Parts: sequence; C-alpha cells; structure tokens
Amino acid sequence: MIVRIEVRLKKGYFDPEGEVTARALKDLTFPVNNVKVSKLYTIDLRVEKKEEAIKIAEEMCKKLLANPTKDEYSIEVLLNGEINEKI
Amino acid sequence: MIVRIEVRLKKGYFDPEGEVTARALKDLTFPVNNVKVSKLYTIDLRVEKKEEAIKIAEEMCKKLLANPTKDEYSIEVLLNGEINEKI
Repeated sequence: MIVRIEVRLKKGYFDPEGEVTARALKDLTFPVNNVKVSKLYTIDLRVEKKEEAIKIAEEMCKKLLANPTKDEYSIEVLLNGEINEKI
Repeated sequence: MIVRIEVRLKKGYFDPEGEVTARALKDLTFPVNNVKVSKLYTIDLRVEKKEEAIKIAEEMCKKLLANPTKDEYSIEVLLNGEINEKI
C-alpha cells in the first residue's frame, strides 16, 4: 500500500527555499505572491489495511520524518492509484 | 489562486534521499519496501482563472522548477482550499 506524507514547515517558520524560489519566479515576471516548499515522501508499505498504513505513517513521522518543533505533516493513503483518505 | 506543483525524479533516476530514508525506516523496523522523495511547491498566484493558473504553473516548471532531463511534474489547482483540478 502506498502512503504519501507531506512534511512542511509550521506557520511562522522562515522558509528560505520558498523565499528564493519566489524571488526567482518574480524575476522571471511570473505573478507570484509567495511560495512554500515542502517535502513529499511516497512510501510503499507492506501492510494490507488502510488504518494500519495511516498508523504506521504517523509513527514514521514522529520517529523520523518530521521535526515536531518546526514541522507539520499530512498523510494520504493511495488505494489503486487514487487518493482515498487524507488526514 | 493556489497551485501545488510536485516535482519528482523520472523513473530510472537514482533517488539517494529516498534510498537513505528507506534504509533508516527499515532500521526502525517499519515494513517499508521503498521510498521516493519529491518536492512540493505551494504557490500563491495573482490570477483569477483556473486555466490561466495551470498555464502559468506549466511555464514555471519549464523555466525554473523542473529539470526536463531528469524531472517530471504534476500540477494541482486549489479552489477554496480544495483540490479541483489535477493534471
């Protein structure tokens, strides 16, 4: 089962990559107000049940993928290539 | 209008960050087969129409955000906080 985990900075934390990207896009005359950059992990898990996949994804965020001080995350479970649950 | 652009490596390109993340998760005994890491740009655009937002997002990918040799991308437009179009 495939889970997709987005890890992004919490509000109020400075996102230097987003700032630089916004500036570069503005320099190219794109009508950009602001840019946020986050990381997306697409993970193939050896589990059968959606509930189990979500539980494991949350544990992975807490133990490795997200820094609880500065990051927040969201989890999607893909069943048959479609997004079936977003939490 | 908010667009979300995912930029990921094309199939066949080695993803070292994904490999390292997969190994770390396996070491923590998570039932992981493999991990792919991609970048997600959440961009606030000064445009009114969805079609225009998609066109600009594609141009931004071609001119700056994606490397045509090794990257592929997908674009989502968010209307009222929801994902309304995915291409």
